[in-house]
Amino acid sequence: MATSKNAVEPLVIGIDIGGTGTKFGIVDRVGNVLFSSQMSTKKHKTIETFIDDLYNNLKPLIDKAGGVGRIKGIGVGAPNGNYYSGTVEYAPNLPWKGILPLAKLVQDKFKLPVVLTNDANAAAIGEMMYGAAQGMKDFIMITLGTGVGSGIVANGHLIYGHDGFAGELGHTIIIPDGRMHEGTGKRGSLESYASATGVTLTALELLKNTKKKSVLRDVKPEEIDSKKVFDAAIAGDELAKEIFEYTGKILGMALANAVMFSSPEAIILFGGLTKAGELILKPTREHMEANLIQVFQNKVKILVSHLKESDAAILGASALAWEIK
Amino acid sequence: MATSKNAVEPLVIGIDIGGTGTKFGIVDRVGNVLFSSQMSTKKHKTIETFIDDLYNNLKPLIDKAGGVGRIKGIGVGAPNGNYYSGTVEYAPNLPWKGILPLAKLVQDKFKLPVVLTNDANAAAIGEMMYGAAQGMKDFIMITLGTGVGSGIVANGHLIYGHDGFAGELGHTIIIPDGRMHEGTGKRGSLESYASATGVTLTALELLKNTKKKSVLRDVKPEEIDSKKVFDAAIAGDELAKEIFEYTGKILGMALANAVMFSSPEAIILFGGLTKAGELILKPTREHMEANLIQVFQNKVKILVSHLKESDAAILGASALAWEIK
Repeated sequence: MATSKNAVEPLVIGIDIGGTGTKFGIVDRVGNVLFSSQMSTKKHKTIETFIDDLYNNLKPLIDKAGGVGRIKGIGVGAPNGNYYSGTVEYAPNLPWKGILPLAKLVQDKFKLPVVLTNDANAAAIGEMMYGAAQGMKDFIMITLGTGVGSGIVANGHLIYGHDGFAGELGHTIIIPDGRMHEGTGKRGSLESYASATGVTLTALELLKNTKKKSVLRDVKPEEIDSKKVFDAAIAGDELAKEIFEYTGKILGMALANAVMFSSPEAIILFGGLTKAGELILKPTREHMEANLIQVFQNKVKILVSHLKESDAAILGASALAWEIK
Repeated sequence: MATSKNAVEPLVIGIDIGGTGTKFGIVDRVGNVLFSSQMSTKKHKTIETFIDDLYNNLKPLIDKAGGVGRIKGIGVGAPNGNYYSGTVEYAPNLPWKGILPLAKLVQDKFKLPVVLTNDANAAAIGEMMYGAAQGMKDFIMITLGTGVGSGIVANGHLIYGHDGFAGELGHTIIIPDGRMHEGTGKRGSLESYASATGVTLTALELLKNTKKKSVLRDVKPEEIDSKKVFDAAIAGDELAKEIFEYTGKILGMALANAVMFSSPEAIILFGGLTKAGELILKPTREHMEANLIQVFQNKVKILVSHLKESDAAILGASALAWEIK
């Protein structure tokens, strides 16, 4: 579709609400983030002051983009965001509890149509529209950040499930009676191992339960995080490499199960842990293949998202808004 | 749609190919199996003699139903049946090895259009068309027989995956490094526990590793099977009840993972093991709920298929044929 820059080409707003911060921007049809900014999520004790602040931050960007008349709609990605009801329900990482009518609150404030889904589903749509999943009808998006999120696309459509909450691979149980997840009270979930938090916990366990030499022994336990483990592994530290090996083993098992479920063409990984590159990708690939039955072996691509991390969350959320009728 | 019985109401053929036997029948639009019969699968050393025999058995039924002109098409359910390619690939339970062009062979012999999928996918379509899943857009079908099969429906469509092989929940790993599956060489899969074979293995393990009294101790180990365990449990045998409790525990964990994947409205169970009723359903339900995060709890129905077992396989396969254009 040919458009000229000064014509009334429609734009959309993408808002990605995270536990710590919220990113937002104005996006054109081909995925250019024209204007963007961010603000704190967690300093807002109530959802109402958060929405007011969001409006005050976005209004100047909307004006710069040519005014509200150019905006087709708003896509919002948020933890536990429900596509069907427009609500955020019991999100452990957000400062506001219970069931929040988020889409309605944003819609009333901005006077624009709003679509909501969870952040990983939004990321999947972003990859399908602008990223590594262009042209794919069957793929799984996995976000490896503080937690583990997922969005599953089958037959060209995101799977929302009967209630809008499908795609919680991070909470599937990989190690029965395994590591406790403080947020959910469940044991052995993927998220308790294959997240930044999980890497830190694995580091603390290995430091405590083995005698292996490691530069991580010079770091105070409360200061160990996935970044320090990464730096140590890159510098050749054997224990640090073992931490990623273990993380990849658990992730690979989980991916094998996901593949045997929906048989995707590719699994697209996104988020902080992917920066470890082959340190985590190699064991992930190996353990995925080792757990697949023959008919699935050597078929599924594991790809790392190539969307710019600063833009990806906004792009994903914004992609939702193009579907507004 | 109103039809009169003596008009040219179209009919379809359903063929369900199992490792031991093959069932087939002629079905009308509302799911009446008008004519049906069965024959051996395993006595046929080649697929060609199998197809010849199938034709010779079906031809008289087709004639009774009014001739080939009334038949719209043939739906075939078979282990590892591929919807896209029409082939059966590396099916461990069939007597013929490698990649078999099954749909083409049936089509050439019968001169009718043929659709193929795996047996559990066919069962899912059967439930959606004639059974417990009527009106549902998101559900999972699980067949608990000699093995464990599954068919996953999301957004009203069966998930075939990029290659046609989606829905192999039976091979997902539930217990890492757990029980060896002789057919796949993988450890800890759902099928190695929650199948008739799995129940037998659990019985042998518990008899060997515990000192508990049980009527099963009077049975020769090589004669123990899921039927004998069932009879013992019904008669109040504590060890036999424990076997179903354990089977339900593993199945419940697997169902929790499946729910967190695609968030179905219901899980529909079918097959021999469901005859154990609450002996297996109660622990299955309890362990599923115990492993679900809050947002999924107390929402998902576990239903047992109410299709007549002798008809269900034929109905499932036949349902595919209505989709032929």
